[in-house]
Amino acid sequence: MKPLRVGLIGYGFMGRAHSNAFKQVSQFFELKHRPVLKAVCARDAVKAKAFAQNWGYESIETDWRRLVERDDIDLIDIASPNNTHAEIAMAAAKAGKMILCEKPLAMNGPQGEKMVAAIARAGVPNMVWYNYRRIPAVTLAKQLIDEGRLGRIFHYRAKFLQDWTINPELPQGGAGLWRLDIKVAGSGVTGDLLAHCIDTALWLNGSIDTVTAMTETFVKERKHNLTGKVEKVGIDDASAFLARFSNGSLATFESTRYARGHKALYTFEINGEHGSLAWDLHDLHRIQCFEHKDEGRVRGWRNIHVTDSDQPYMKNWWVPGLAIGYEHSFVHQVADFIQGLDSGKPAAPSFKDALQTEYVTDAVLKSARTKRWEKVKKSK
Amino acid sequence: MKPLRVGLIGYGFMGRAHSNAFKQVSQFFELKHRPVLKAVCARDAVKAKAFAQNWGYESIETDWRRLVERDDIDLIDIASPNNTHAEIAMAAAKAGKMILCEKPLAMNGPQGEKMVAAIARAGVPNMVWYNYRRIPAVTLAKQLIDEGRLGRIFHYRAKFLQDWTINPELPQGGAGLWRLDIKVAGSGVTGDLLAHCIDTALWLNGSIDTVTAMTETFVKERKHNLTGKVEKVGIDDASAFLARFSNGSLATFESTRYARGHKALYTFEINGEHGSLAWDLHDLHRIQCFEHKDEGRVRGWRNIHVTDSDQPYMKNWWVPGLAIGYEHSFVHQVADFIQGLDSGKPAAPSFKDALQTEYVTDAVLKSARTKRWEKVKKSK
Amino acid sequence: MKPLRVGLIGYGFMGRAHSNAFKQVSQFFELKHRPVLKAVCARDAVKAKAFAQNWGYESIETDWRRLVERDDIDLIDIASPNNTHAEIAMAAAKAGKMILCEKPLAMNGPQGEKMVAAIARAGVPNMVWYNYRRIPAVTLAKQLIDEGRLGRIFHYRAKFLQDWTINPELPQGGAGLWRLDIKVAGSGVTGDLLAHCIDTALWLNGSIDTVTAMTETFVKERKHNLTGKVEKVGIDDASAFLARFSNGSLATFESTRYARGHKALYTFEINGEHGSLAWDLHDLHRIQCFEHKDEGRVRGWRNIHVTDSDQPYMKNWWVPGLAIGYEHSFVHQVADFIQGLDSGKPAAPSFKDALQTEYVTDAVLKSARTKRWEKVKKSK
Amino acid sequence: MKPLRVGLIGYGFMGRAHSNAFKQVSQFFELKHRPVLKAVCARDAVKAKAFAQNWGYESIETDWRRLVERDDIDLIDIASPNNTHAEIAMAAAKAGKMILCEKPLAMNGPQGEKMVAAIARAGVPNMVWYNYRRIPAVTLAKQLIDEGRLGRIFHYRAKFLQDWTINPELPQGGAGLWRLDIKVAGSGVTGDLLAHCIDTALWLNGSIDTVTAMTETFVKERKHNLTGKVEKVGIDDASAFLARFSNGSLATFESTRYARGHKALYTFEINGEHGSLAWDLHDLHRIQCFEHKDEGRVRGWRNIHVTDSDQPYMKNWWVPGLAIGYEHSFVHQVADFIQGLDSGKPAAPSFKDALQTEYVTDAVLKSARTKRWEKVKKSK
Repeated sequence: MKPLRVGLIGYGFMGRAHSNAFKQVSQFFELKHRPVLKAVCARDAVKAKAFAQNWGYESIETDWRRLVERDDIDLIDIASPNNTHAEIAMAAAKAGKMILCEKPLAMNGPQGEKMVAAIARAGVPNMVWYNYRRIPAVTLAKQLIDEGRLGRIFHYRAKFLQDWTINPELPQGGAGLWRLDIKVAGSGVTGDLLAHCIDTALWLNGSIDTVTAMTETFVKERKHNLTGKVEKVGIDDASAFLARFSNGSLATFESTRYARGHKALYTFEINGEHGSLAWDLHDLHRIQCFEHKDEGRVRGWRNIHVTDSDQPYMKNWWVPGLAIGYEHSFVHQVADFIQGLDSGKPAAPSFKDALQTEYVTDAVLKSARTKRWEKVKKSK
Repeated sequence: MKPLRVGLIGYGFMGRAHSNAFKQVSQFFELKHRPVLKAVCARDAVKAKAFAQNWGYESIETDWRRLVERDDIDLIDIASPNNTHAEIAMAAAKAGKMILCEKPLAMNGPQGEKMVAAIARAGVPNMVWYNYRRIPAVTLAKQLIDEGRLGRIFHYRAKFLQDWTINPELPQGGAGLWRLDIKVAGSGVTGDLLAHCIDTALWLNGSIDTVTAMTETFVKERKHNLTGKVEKVGIDDASAFLARFSNGSLATFESTRYARGHKALYTFEINGEHGSLAWDLHDLHRIQCFEHKDEGRVRGWRNIHVTDSDQPYMKNWWVPGLAIGYEHSFVHQVADFIQGLDSGKPAAPSFKDALQTEYVTDAVLKSARTKRWEKVKKSK
Repeated sequence: MKPLRVGLIGYGFMGRAHSNAFKQVSQFFELKHRPVLKAVCARDAVKAKAFAQNWGYESIETDWRRLVERDDIDLIDIASPNNTHAEIAMAAAKAGKMILCEKPLAMNGPQGEKMVAAIARAGVPNMVWYNYRRIPAVTLAKQLIDEGRLGRIFHYRAKFLQDWTINPELPQGGAGLWRLDIKVAGSGVTGDLLAHCIDTALWLNGSIDTVTAMTETFVKERKHNLTGKVEKVGIDDASAFLARFSNGSLATFESTRYARGHKALYTFEINGEHGSLAWDLHDLHRIQCFEHKDEGRVRGWRNIHVTDSDQPYMKNWWVPGLAIGYEHSFVHQVADFIQGLDSGKPAAPSFKDALQTEYVTDAVLKSARTKRWEKVKKSK
Repeated sequence: MKPLRVGLIGYGFMGRAHSNAFKQVSQFFELKHRPVLKAVCARDAVKAKAFAQNWGYESIETDWRRLVERDDIDLIDIASPNNTHAEIAMAAAKAGKMILCEKPLAMNGPQGEKMVAAIARAGVPNMVWYNYRRIPAVTLAKQLIDEGRLGRIFHYRAKFLQDWTINPELPQGGAGLWRLDIKVAGSGVTGDLLAHCIDTALWLNGSIDTVTAMTETFVKERKHNLTGKVEKVGIDDASAFLARFSNGSLATFESTRYARGHKALYTFEINGEHGSLAWDLHDLHRIQCFEHKDEGRVRGWRNIHVTDSDQPYMKNWWVPGLAIGYEHSFVHQVADFIQGLDSGKPAAPSFKDALQTEYVTDAVLKSARTKRWEKVKKSK
């Protein structure tokens, strides 16, 4: 088994999720590479050291540029805030490193294009952490759709509802809160939550042609945690859009952090001529499936507990009926990435795939401003 | 269309449910007889008159013996408390009337035997109001089981949970509370709630051979509403038993009025070699169905919304997706009773069928006393 | 008790639902008027007679103009197709009759305005059958919102999903299918299904300012059942829109007859600062309620089975835990209409209230054509 | 941080679950000891080596006696079949090792008593892997009950339903199938599944006084996988019992491997004077909670998604809304065990606690034979 020497940038929520995935994957999946936690990089040396010790990283860096230059690193994993992705990724590509990048890929489409170009020039393996593709129930949905079981698709609908920013006293910016800072995050829920919905939708249902959108910022001013000043809020608190897919289906998308009672309610549903599928992150181990071919009298939505060995990824875990959780989607993504290295067939979504999500979010944000239907740019 | 002249005894909860059924049935079902509300009988003339006026009964009686003797009555409907069923039914049979009787049939098996004998001698059409058989989802379960879709049966489980008697200040006896008075009700939840569970079980899964049971009275004394005295409580507040069916399957049954949070949670589930079914009175328009023959990857419990025209009784009501409720089970029972008259094939459960439920509840109550497994008497 | 002499026009699905309501209401609600089924009107005398006999209407008419002129009729109930509402209602108003009209009120806003003007001139009691307001769970939602329990509202979302027109062989027009005929229906799902969603939304969350919409006709040509010709389909099969309410909340609305697996899935959810509510027509007797004030550790969506006597309308029916169904919403509407007569405080929605829904559907259909945000006209 | 040097015996399903827990715990919980995977022991050296390599065990043993004697081992973890527990545990105790033992503790109560005595003599830290206590939703239930929120308890009900042995061609015995071999397992579902239900019940609701039980073996003969012979099946395929707890509450328990459609449906519900709780392993991250003190109109079962930082164990994982799975219950158990070492307050269930479960299962199996109510022996 060959080592895959990882250099991680960032030690927050995603830094933990990725590290756990790198550690668990070798025990549960048979692969030809084994991740080795070589270094973690963060500006604060004390925190970096504590993180390294906890997770078993062999060393630390406080400047990502040094990390990128190190010879003993094969793969740079970018788990730092959105506004840092592009510069790091382009440098890492130039240095010939494989790259895993947290979502969203970039601050916007044009920035993402530069990243994709850099990756293409460097020819390095790359992937973006749209982890929800690897929830077994979601992967099963992909399989069923690709097999044509739903037939012609008429409708797609997705939403991602949270409620954690309703309190107007919550500051914007600073540790754990950079997602509320427009300069760091690039946008609000559009790039954070809708981006997940869009990535899954493009994967399951193909490309989106046009959108009409609205966004809203319910709390107009918040204190900035770093400066201490009360400043205008730049992000979108809520974002919704109508869309038309290239396959002729219609869609509704919605995300917000003001839906009281929902912590992380990412749901999608797809309706086709022959059947429908629905999924919900709050019960991520289940997929609801309706098939019109079932006998009429006993036709109904099948509530499928995706924990059997013939369902995606599940033969690698426990026994039927015993659910896995959120973190496993990251383990699966690492497994698939390594499987891609081993087999020469790269796992998706690549930077290029993720760029398409940037194009959609760009069109959404533009439409919210222009109050018109906007075309979505297509990757070549 | 021929008239079916009804004489109702009792004007409580069940008197209302039956009256509504007699009135609605002709609009929704094509039948050769139409119920005519001829008379209602109750000891209190004022209340009887008010009830008659409200529901359109043409006349009243204050003595059920007079009602039974009237020539202009075809059918006696017994909706009075349990301790009155036997005497009325035997007199009505002797008078050659058709009889509908509220459940439970009798105060116990021996009393029920006399009623069955009287009915047999008189040769009159008869039925007991075990209305839950006629919830469309339950009837669908019956059809599926009878078609053999579940294969060999391994397990049956049923429970009926309520919480309305937890308050120790609730009196026993009197209007609306006679179900707490042992002299009037005969038993507590065993005859009231378990009887429903047992009737359905016998219908769906055949006869029960042996039982072992326990009962409990949590509140030992209550004021009697009529006498004003605090007296020992004679009824069982909770009753549970294990059973073995003649088909080799095992069962658990439970009922209580002390299950906080449940209003009328009658549920049953049946597990067979090839599939399973589950139902719940709180969402009575749904049946859950699992079939092992479904493809493995997409196997799951089908959540069937029983509102389609190819599902029992539903073509007579509205359109798919639009649910009917509790009261419709009574309408269906009247429809089936009349259909039985029209066709000469009597609808079930007859008095004789209902006697078998008495035998089971007798065995349950006996076992709770003897603390042994008891055999269930079988009707010849 | 005074008689309320009803003349019904139309004998289809809605004619049955209304007739049942007129018949049941007096048994379950204490009111000062009792509906008397005086006459039913339909062009086909044979069918009208059969309907009259089944439901107990005393007489028939084959020309609605004659019905409207009859002195022995107090109330005209319009249950005929959409394109007949305006003419009948205006004539009935002129004749001084009370009027109940099926939804949608009119073919469009301008036509509705004429109806509202006629009603206003005549000063007659009037109501539109937006029956879903009277589902107990929905009425409870209204009460909770009006009490301010949700606080400032951020989001509203509603959808009404069906799947009964996916089959391209289904004809357009003719008995039971006039909803597919643009000339008779005025629009497709927008006026049929979205109108329900909009009525409830306006009632619960106040007025809508602006919308952006899309509509689609998936099956472009169908045979017309009456002419036998294959003709272009004029109705919208699917319709979705984004909206901004006057109270600052954002909304998504969607309806379709192409969502495989859904029979009549009308759902709405409303998210406020302090709590949220969600409802679903497929389980109409339940409301989901989240309240942030609950203790953190045990906070969750409360699944409320709306069958208790302290919940709207339920003290008039059975006992806790026993559900009522779809048809009861019509009974409640008649009860409230009569209560309005008795008390002098008219029940909603009046023709004027329903006109506001026409304005929203007009704006939706317009936006779908212009591909712009459109303002919603406001009633004065 | 001090090392806690682990010697694992067994490399099956439980060997994996435990190993994963030992590896993950230090990253997610702040503790004073860190597990070190010192050695794994299995009779088959090749398999032991492969397992050691995969999980990072430093060495292997093929004889557990040698493992127990090693000086570099602090803790013996017994994850081998039931019939090996006693001998290993007693030797390990004698050698002064800490001991973790898979459930059930022993083949029966008398054997368990010897183990408890050995442990007591040795005075070594010990625990049994009844992991379901550490599902956050279950731990939350424990907290709520201990706070008295449910008041006087009336009812407890639990079941554990599976369907994996319905196929009569499934062999008994051999790798992965020893649970079907009476000599190795000691009993069937009683010791395997019911033992889990009983452990949780004793923890949540106190001791059980008496039981009446039935067991059944549906498939009477199976081929033995090791010998190749068709032999009588000695285990119980299904087991159900009624029980009375010392606190006066009544209970029903059921387990089976013949409930088609259920993979690992462990559910429990507890009903008290003031409220009720219900849990389900298939959606293990949720607890249902009903509290009578809630306002009547909006009272209902709260569906609690146990993923917030103020809920047990969850502050150590991800963010609200993101579920953990089955394996985490083992991580929590190791965390609590170490916390017990660190603090001097041992975590439960100890061997002595688990012995009480043996007494209940003994009484259940005895009652199934005697067909009488049996008293449950109580630990001193």
